[in-house]
Amino acid sequence: MAYQGYNPYGGYGQPQQNQVSPEVQNFFAQVDKDRSGKINSQELQQALINGKGQQFSDQACNLMISMFDADRSGTIDVYEFEKLFNYINQWLSCFKAYDRDSSGAIEEAELGQALSQMGFRFSPQFVTFLIGNNDPNRREIAVDQFIVLCIKIQRFTDAFRQRDQQQQGIISIGFEDFLGIALACTN
Amino acid sequence: MAYQGYNPYGGYGQPQQNQVSPEVQNFFAQVDKDRSGKINSQELQQALINGKGQQFSDQACNLMISMFDADRSGTIDVYEFEKLFNYINQWLSCFKAYDRDSSGAIEEAELGQALSQMGFRFSPQFVTFLIGNNDPNRREIAVDQFIVLCIKIQRFTDAFRQRDQQQQGIISIGFEDFLGIALACTN
Repeated sequence: MAYQGYNPYGGYGQPQQNQVSPEVQNFFAQVDKDRSGKINSQELQQALINGKGQQFSDQACNLMISMFDADRSGTIDVYEFEKLFNYINQWLSCFKAYDRDSSGAIEEAELGQALSQMGFRFSPQFVTFLIGNNDPNRREIAVDQFIVLCIKIQRFTDAFRQRDQQQQGIISIGFEDFLGIALACTN
Repeated sequence: MAYQGYNPYGGYGQPQQNQVSPEVQNFFAQVDKDRSGKINSQELQQALINGKGQQFSDQACNLMISMFDADRSGTIDVYEFEKLFNYINQWLSCFKAYDRDSSGAIEEAELGQALSQMGFRFSPQFVTFLIGNNDPNRREIAVDQFIVLCIKIQRFTDAFRQRDQQQQGIISIGFEDFLGIALACTN
């Protein structure tokens, strides 16, 4: 006779491969204010402060949740949160490596180097465009803007590559397909 | 001898062609909480409630400000605000015409009709994609989501048309150009 949730080799609970690190469990518990076992974009926003002392933007939190929200419920559980946590940390360590004065922001030359380290080869003109795109009066980007930028670049690059079968760096694309990518990737 | 701001034909103040309607001046004064003569995205957000009783999203307010923020200062003055006010009102009247129960949201068929009235010819499949793109669990869009959608569609359509000289509905586009449009239009 077997009981649901009972594992004769390891006791009750989740099998080994699903275990979440105590650090992530702790952080998740702090974010999950209503103790629902799921966190949404608003809860994530309450928990995150950028290096400038400001809350992360709506857009940053929505994008971060949507990356690992497999059932598109608008929420993620602790296992999905661990994936998000690890993913974001990879970008953060890249960001921090270039934010030498720990100001919470990086400037144009550093942004170019960071993107290059992430495998993107952009022209200097394009990096100039990127740094001014958020706010032309401030030639730097904060960490949450950096995360939004990286997620968008990743999504658009994936969508472009799918259509660039010969890897020529140029595609032919119809109006609805173009608009569909643009809207889906920036939700 | 002439004094700055003195108009011998109409007294002090703005010339006739720059006058803003009392309705717009009133609304602007309510939104401009810090009396700076300029409003930013946060002030606009405080003033706008969608038909569901929720504040407009960050993204909606950022996009709305950015449309008429000619000097990209992140703020608009009362003259720019009047243009925004009129522009948004055109979309709102279109939205309201389809929101027959005044619920503050429209559904798939209505969205298709509204976009069609605005001059867009989208396939039924694309309208289905659009309605699910915000939140697949709610087959409707609220008024602020509608405004965001319209602004994005308008921007992407303009960018596409510029590259579609022969009006064939298909373009060839390189990676940086594609990414640049996508990022600039969704800021």
